[in-house]
Amino acid sequence: MHKLLTFFYLLTLSCWSQNPIQSSLNLMPWPQEVQENEQQFTVTPNLTIAINGPSGMRVPHTATSFLRRLSNRSGVFINEGFPAPFSNDSTASITVNFKTIAALSIETDESYNLQVTANGISINATTDVGAIRGLETLLQLLENDATSYYFVGVNITDAPRFVWRGLMIDVSRHFHSVDVIKRNLRAMASVKMNVFHWHLTDDQGFRVESKTYPKLHTVASDGLYYTHEQIKDVVAYANKLGIRVIPEFDVPGHATAILTAYPELGSKPDASYTIERFSGVFNPTLNPIIEDTYTFLENLFTEIAPLFPDAYFHIGGDENAGKHWNENEAIQQFKADNNLATNHDLQTYFNIRLEKILNKLGKHLVGWDEIMTPNMPKTAVIHSWRGENEGLQKGGTLIEAAQKGYKTILSNGFYIDRMESVIKHYQTEPIGTISLSAEEEACILGGEVTMWSELVTSLTIDSRIWPRTAAIAERLWSNKTVTDVNHMLKRLQVINYNLEAVGITHLRNKAVVLRNLTNNQNIDALKTLTNICEPLKIYSRNEGGTEYKTYSPFTLFADACTADAMDALQFNHLVKHFLADKNEATSAEIKILLTRWADQYELFSKLEKNPKLTPLEPLSLNLSQVSATLLNLLNGKKVPKKTLKECKKQITLLKQPFADTELMIVNNLELLFEALK
Amino acid sequence: MHKLLTFFYLLTLSCWSQNPIQSSLNLMPWPQEVQENEQQFTVTPNLTIAINGPSGMRVPHTATSFLRRLSNRSGVFINEGFPAPFSNDSTASITVNFKTIAALSIETDESYNLQVTANGISINATTDVGAIRGLETLLQLLENDATSYYFVGVNITDAPRFVWRGLMIDVSRHFHSVDVIKRNLRAMASVKMNVFHWHLTDDQGFRVESKTYPKLHTVASDGLYYTHEQIKDVVAYANKLGIRVIPEFDVPGHATAILTAYPELGSKPDASYTIERFSGVFNPTLNPIIEDTYTFLENLFTEIAPLFPDAYFHIGGDENAGKHWNENEAIQQFKADNNLATNHDLQTYFNIRLEKILNKLGKHLVGWDEIMTPNMPKTAVIHSWRGENEGLQKGGTLIEAAQKGYKTILSNGFYIDRMESVIKHYQTEPIGTISLSAEEEACILGGEVTMWSELVTSLTIDSRIWPRTAAIAERLWSNKTVTDVNHMLKRLQVINYNLEAVGITHLRNKAVVLRNLTNNQNIDALKTLTNICEPLKIYSRNEGGTEYKTYSPFTLFADACTADAMDALQFNHLVKHFLADKNEATSAEIKILLTRWADQYELFSKLEKNPKLTPLEPLSLNLSQVSATLLNLLNGKKVPKKTLKECKKQITLLKQPFADTELMIVNNLELLFEALK
Repeated sequence: MHKLLTFFYLLTLSCWSQNPIQSSLNLMPWPQEVQENEQQFTVTPNLTIAINGPSGMRVPHTATSFLRRLSNRSGVFINEGFPAPFSNDSTASITVNFKTIAALSIETDESYNLQVTANGISINATTDVGAIRGLETLLQLLENDATSYYFVGVNITDAPRFVWRGLMIDVSRHFHSVDVIKRNLRAMASVKMNVFHWHLTDDQGFRVESKTYPKLHTVASDGLYYTHEQIKDVVAYANKLGIRVIPEFDVPGHATAILTAYPELGSKPDASYTIERFSGVFNPTLNPIIEDTYTFLENLFTEIAPLFPDAYFHIGGDENAGKHWNENEAIQQFKADNNLATNHDLQTYFNIRLEKILNKLGKHLVGWDEIMTPNMPKTAVIHSWRGENEGLQKGGTLIEAAQKGYKTILSNGFYIDRMESVIKHYQTEPIGTISLSAEEEACILGGEVTMWSELVTSLTIDSRIWPRTAAIAERLWSNKTVTDVNHMLKRLQVINYNLEAVGITHLRNKAVVLRNLTNNQNIDALKTLTNICEPLKIYSRNEGGTEYKTYSPFTLFADACTADAMDALQFNHLVKHFLADKNEATSAEIKILLTRWADQYELFSKLEKNPKLTPLEPLSLNLSQVSATLLNLLNGKKVPKKTLKECKKQITLLKQPFADTELMIVNNLELLFEALK
Repeated sequence: MHKLLTFFYLLTLSCWSQNPIQSSLNLMPWPQEVQENEQQFTVTPNLTIAINGPSGMRVPHTATSFLRRLSNRSGVFINEGFPAPFSNDSTASITVNFKTIAALSIETDESYNLQVTANGISINATTDVGAIRGLETLLQLLENDATSYYFVGVNITDAPRFVWRGLMIDVSRHFHSVDVIKRNLRAMASVKMNVFHWHLTDDQGFRVESKTYPKLHTVASDGLYYTHEQIKDVVAYANKLGIRVIPEFDVPGHATAILTAYPELGSKPDASYTIERFSGVFNPTLNPIIEDTYTFLENLFTEIAPLFPDAYFHIGGDENAGKHWNENEAIQQFKADNNLATNHDLQTYFNIRLEKILNKLGKHLVGWDEIMTPNMPKTAVIHSWRGENEGLQKGGTLIEAAQKGYKTILSNGFYIDRMESVIKHYQTEPIGTISLSAEEEACILGGEVTMWSELVTSLTIDSRIWPRTAAIAERLWSNKTVTDVNHMLKRLQVINYNLEAVGITHLRNKAVVLRNLTNNQNIDALKTLTNICEPLKIYSRNEGGTEYKTYSPFTLFADACTADAMDALQFNHLVKHFLADKNEATSAEIKILLTRWADQYELFSKLEKNPKLTPLEPLSLNLSQVSATLLNLLNGKKVPKKTLKECKKQITLLKQPFADTELMIVNNLELLFEALK
């Protein structure tokens, strides 16, 4: 614990501190109003929960799960394993009061008040969804000393800033079973997220059983798809957690899987297709000028829509370059005949027809921001994803959509598959300083984290989603003024570990990958490396060197590494601080890290080698030598010129990627070296 | 690796070596015939699999899974991610030949031949089930050096000794989701097991959706049950792996959950029931003298039986003491009227009526060995479970059943929930030296591991089932002469780790429990303790001190510990060896362990305490002090008398349980102390 405290002490000296939060509570997302009262409610075997509200599934489910998690974390053998109905002579420890069972929508009231005193705990909410949000806050108030666990005394009044706080999971590039989805739904609920966007189809697989078009799942899924029963199960489970489920059927592009099953719907005459195995943007596209396409989509959506009770339905609509449209004479003729100047206009024609189909089914159309063309009806929801990488302004399409009167949600800035730091995502403020009218601002529903799955399997997906998504959940729930990065990072460490209790596998599966890497030898050296290396960012892992297919091994070193490599974050701040003031205490902290890195090669070198380890040898060795040299310099020892020259070379060498990862400390190793040599 | 080698070297000096196996291959179960040819087949990106046989699901499924596991383990980016159909000009690396698609039954041919040479690999089998057994053997032949992965050259001819090699999982005492079941099915297939016995009902919950009697799942399951679709999914998945699924509906005892839903079927007039939360044997029992009971069971079984295509159906029948029968006058009158002298006779009457119902449904009745009463028809299968603990001979009912002409399977000796050593289970030979006629021997179908789940949740169940079940799988597959315990233990270490690759969570979840125990602090001290402590055995964990309910915390120290605590096994053998010959090398090995134990308290003492850690403090401290004293004695240092006296006390103290675990080294600490003091 000592190390962590020092670490955060140092971070507070950095430039990030804005609107600092003084409280030591580990709440995330941070509530709108928090008052502490210096009391505690102690957890004993006699703890009980009473439910005071109309009967429904959500509160009993979450209260039962609350009791299990409380018992598991505290070790207290709670006598009553289930909540009880409220009665007037109730002496329950925790009373959960609410007035109505909510129908989930963008109108759902999620507000609650939570009071904890030494004598009892009460949650008051208008709806059962607000009540379960309050129970999650309460569990985050659990703390302990040597002799007991207790809830910290507070009075919290809370409600979300945005109504749409989502996580998208792509199950096409890699399939993820119902259990993987459910554990992520539990984790979402634990940080008060309320939309699960299920990216169900793409070039690499169609993941839904279709009774109308069975080739979609028999031919285009490799046998990996959800049955209708499984979808109903997931939707019902999400509903119990107060989470809406939005399906996405990505058309007219990203359609290779659909066309593998039904090639006659493609834009390339007489083509045949096979399920895509690589990552990227591909040309297979539905043919927008034949009625069969619309018949197909109407029948399919008519079959599928009832599985998803939510009012919104996502049709993708992204990344259609239109190559196969350009090559198809009939399509070009159709454009000319219908005054559709560009492929964009043609796609708008397609989208408008889809919107009508969905309207008949009682659904609002949602699409990625390419659908925002001049003729697109204002009933569509614009999903803003493009930004600086695509030559647009950061989050620009969100503001543009709002100003044009579209409802809109933000994902630009929340692409966690890019493997960037949580700090960057946390600082993605949807509206920022732009001045919007009340009506325009009301159009901005919220945002969604996007977990594209080209480079993740079920073994690693949790370590990509979490914990960064918890910080984004805060961005979407908490007040705009909650921007204290240091405080967020401190709280995130606790939340990160608590995610294990709902079944998230991000921490435990790291060791699985490292055991695989070593064939079950001592993994300590590799653990040290994973704490300073991060997977190559922004899709560069898939460029140049290795090109990954869907069935490539995702059990390698890069898969054990994550964004925000813990020791790197610490080291980089220490070095910045040390270079400024040459503080002795900071130097001592740096030496601890350098010693760890200097020593790791001895352990690494003892491993029986295998081809998976080979690419890490130069990383381990050179890091060890550079660290040893820097230690000598820091300790004021005389270092031979030859060694210094060698060290410079070694640092240069360490700047290259190793096994699809980058060493996140290399620049500060170099700065330290330049300052000390 | 050094430590392990030494360890096994030492074990070979012990008394266990019988029929020693010379091969270094890590195959489990050990095949009937193995010839090594000193060749290797190297794994490259060009590796392909061709399937030469009639079309079916099993071989394509297992071959695809084989390719993923091979790629994940080796890190080789295999170009073709799927097997291809065989053609005459095939140049496939691996050819899988088989003649028929098997219908799973006790008649299924599971034999195969596997040849690996430098030029290629072929599997030849009669059925597709034999073929997938061969693929599992092949994957166990994967080895590596520093530069490549390869399959070891062999000619293996193999077939099982017993046709019934099962694992029973109790999903009533604690529910386990479809994903938990599926990962265990994959693990079973990886060691060639072929029967999944699904204990679906008991006092603590009825786990199957019933459309005929919906209160069974709505009232008697706490919402934790399998839908018909989920059962079909599991059965189909098992079928792909060559695993039969036998459902168990435990009646007339173990019926509290059923009676919670339908109390009118109980033997206690006008009683009401609630789902049982404790472990044990309870009195609620179906009423065998009312027709409603048989109507209920016939309707229920008629609804459920089609979900389970297997010819066998388990009706439990165990542990009915008949207390509620004795107390019911009408039942006593019925016994008198029908010449049923004892409750056993009455239960036989009940069983015979069930047998007729099941026969109508095309099913053979299986029951625990209490059903073997004089009038029980010979078409029933006797599941032998009682033994020395129940005042009977070990495995006696198995032999008795065979001699009486019943088909029979053995579970006595395979109760892994008793938390005993794998060695004991491995040495449970079903037939032993008893002389049976060929007909009698043919009655012995095989055996089943039983995983009763009173004390496990989905977090810990894998660490109870595995790896011990793999050794039992060998007992049931391999030749009776395969009894080399040292060789088994060596192979089991490799198999143990390979189980991670099919998703078994036994290794990874230990760290989860320890992080929970420490609130996410350094877990190294606790890891050291888990390697010498084991959960209290033979259900004593649930006696005396803590009485566990189904919703008690199973996230405590005992849940992180397992049978066969690794360092304890090593230490106990080292001490035995050392006391015999005072060997210096052995002394050095002992000192390494003692140093580890002496040091762990320093780490433990640094932990911020919480109530879960408190009971471990005296264990950690006294172990540390005893180890330090023994180190001094071993090093020939003079130890004050006071310290020696203190050490003796400390050893006595360490003999008591700590946090529901026992210190498995304490007797050898004492022997060492007595020898050195």
